[in-house]
Amino acid sequence: MATARKYNVEAVFKGAPKKSDFKIVEETLPAIKDGEFLAEAIWLSVDPYMRLFVNSSNVGNTMFGEQVAKVIESKNENFKVGDYVAGMFGWRTKTISNGDQVRKLDRSVYTDDKLSTGLGILGMPGATAYIAFLSICAPKEGETLVVTGAAGVVGSAVGQIAKIKGCRVVGFAGSDEKVQYLKSLGFDEAINYKTMTSLKETLEKTCPKGIDMFFDNVGGEFYDTIIPQMNTSGRVAVVGCISQYNLENPEKGPRLNPSILAKELTIKGFVIYNHLPRWPEAFKAIGEWIEKGQLKYNETVTEGFDNMFDAFSGLFTGKNTGKAVVKA
Amino acid sequence: MATARKYNVEAVFKGAPKKSDFKIVEETLPAIKDGEFLAEAIWLSVDPYMRLFVNSSNVGNTMFGEQVAKVIESKNENFKVGDYVAGMFGWRTKTISNGDQVRKLDRSVYTDDKLSTGLGILGMPGATAYIAFLSICAPKEGETLVVTGAAGVVGSAVGQIAKIKGCRVVGFAGSDEKVQYLKSLGFDEAINYKTMTSLKETLEKTCPKGIDMFFDNVGGEFYDTIIPQMNTSGRVAVVGCISQYNLENPEKGPRLNPSILAKELTIKGFVIYNHLPRWPEAFKAIGEWIEKGQLKYNETVTEGFDNMFDAFSGLFTGKNTGKAVVKA
Repeated sequence: MATARKYNVEAVFKGAPKKSDFKIVEETLPAIKDGEFLAEAIWLSVDPYMRLFVNSSNVGNTMFGEQVAKVIESKNENFKVGDYVAGMFGWRTKTISNGDQVRKLDRSVYTDDKLSTGLGILGMPGATAYIAFLSICAPKEGETLVVTGAAGVVGSAVGQIAKIKGCRVVGFAGSDEKVQYLKSLGFDEAINYKTMTSLKETLEKTCPKGIDMFFDNVGGEFYDTIIPQMNTSGRVAVVGCISQYNLENPEKGPRLNPSILAKELTIKGFVIYNHLPRWPEAFKAIGEWIEKGQLKYNETVTEGFDNMFDAFSGLFTGKNTGKAVVKA
Repeated sequence: MATARKYNVEAVFKGAPKKSDFKIVEETLPAIKDGEFLAEAIWLSVDPYMRLFVNSSNVGNTMFGEQVAKVIESKNENFKVGDYVAGMFGWRTKTISNGDQVRKLDRSVYTDDKLSTGLGILGMPGATAYIAFLSICAPKEGETLVVTGAAGVVGSAVGQIAKIKGCRVVGFAGSDEKVQYLKSLGFDEAINYKTMTSLKETLEKTCPKGIDMFFDNVGGEFYDTIIPQMNTSGRVAVVGCISQYNLENPEKGPRLNPSILAKELTIKGFVIYNHLPRWPEAFKAIGEWIEKGQLKYNETVTEGFDNMFDAFSGLFTGKNTGKAVVKA
């Protein structure tokens, strides 16, 4: 019998998450049964979406989230001791799983120094960037892409994939440091939206041939302003709308149907978990681009399971660039 | 040398179009040259889309629009005297054309009593209904369609095509007469939106399995209310937004990205003139459905070229059923 440590949700967040909204508890795990395995957390993920999805039904339960873990005991022939897996095990050190919805990590790709990428560029966010951008935006050489939330793991990957496809890439982020980072990745233009004077004028200046593709992680005023400036037959991937997540009632914005109609725009929402069959294709392509030096990624590492709350809290101070991960 | 009468655009519309936004003028036409023909208007079209596309570049020029005309003089071997054609000749009685972008009407289909359908069910609106509905909404048997502006030529054709494809069809229109008309066409549900109490509750009642497809001719509150009630993977054809055309400033509505995202909706604008290669396919299919009695249509006829403005203006007061045409 093993003992796990885990974070229970103590309270629904009010404003910024507080340390007291969580409580670390110990749990004695039963012996594994046939078909099950026991895994030990190696890397844990903290993500902005977690703030949105904590509600009263989570209170008293283990905090949800993905982790990369090592199989340390097994009665499941598909998951052997020593295998590495990625799964939605939550904020906990040890987990019993039957393997359902668990992804086994190919160790020729996820080498020791790259295990954490199973939560980032070679995980859900990377798959999101690849599948949503290519399937919805359908980039053609010479076209212009605008991406919001550009310094995040999804946005920065989308911009780099667009560059690989021969597009002009304009990214928006929230600090001068992030702008520098985006420029170092090869973005044609990177703009600190917090210090620009006018989004409309910034777009006119940075997108002289108009906007063919819009990869939106933010929504709100970005969406309102960019849609009417798009070119005919433009494609819009709605992959996040972080500006709207915390609102009790939908905010109002201009009705954009006249632009959607007259310009024959295509606007499409995207939820990565509906596209599981394409994940391997995404990881293969992204892995090759990383190998060739065409796609770079960044991680903000926090050491120690006991520091998960600090890593999570850090997401909302705008300090992180790239994927935030915790080393257990 | 012939004399034509025509409507010049005098001013860009501010709010609802006014009679003084147009001026009827006379024009002396030159003799036709080799490759040209002279055509006389028989039927002229007024359409809601005209409201959207008049801008400052039109001021001083002939108002655009389609007409069915008879060739009365020709130096073009493809268009002989006595031929009937449909073309974007504008609001004018006589036109010199070189035949570019002109559709010759097959008189075995467009018989004397059906010439006006070249502007309606067997013209641009019919092609719109067929191509936009099938390509964007991609109907599957048993799915539910909501169509707004359902009593118009496009909406009523879309509903009937959806019935042919085995779908449940719910249509909204603006009078009890129109509701009766839609029921006579086989719509499963037809609702007078002017007398209903709550759109949301009406949708819940008439769409017990949710909404898979939304064919929108109206926009505004319909769009705002229907989008959040759509099923996962729903498809939305934005083909008109008549509620927004006469507004001087874009109206505000709730920002709908959270629904678009979470339900992976596809929203697509549609402009029929970008789909010319598919028109013949549309007319063939629609012609066969009419022949078999599976698809019916209706027209509102205004007599007299001098009454074109009234016919146009009538589009926005909700008086018409089916295609609005003017008999020259």
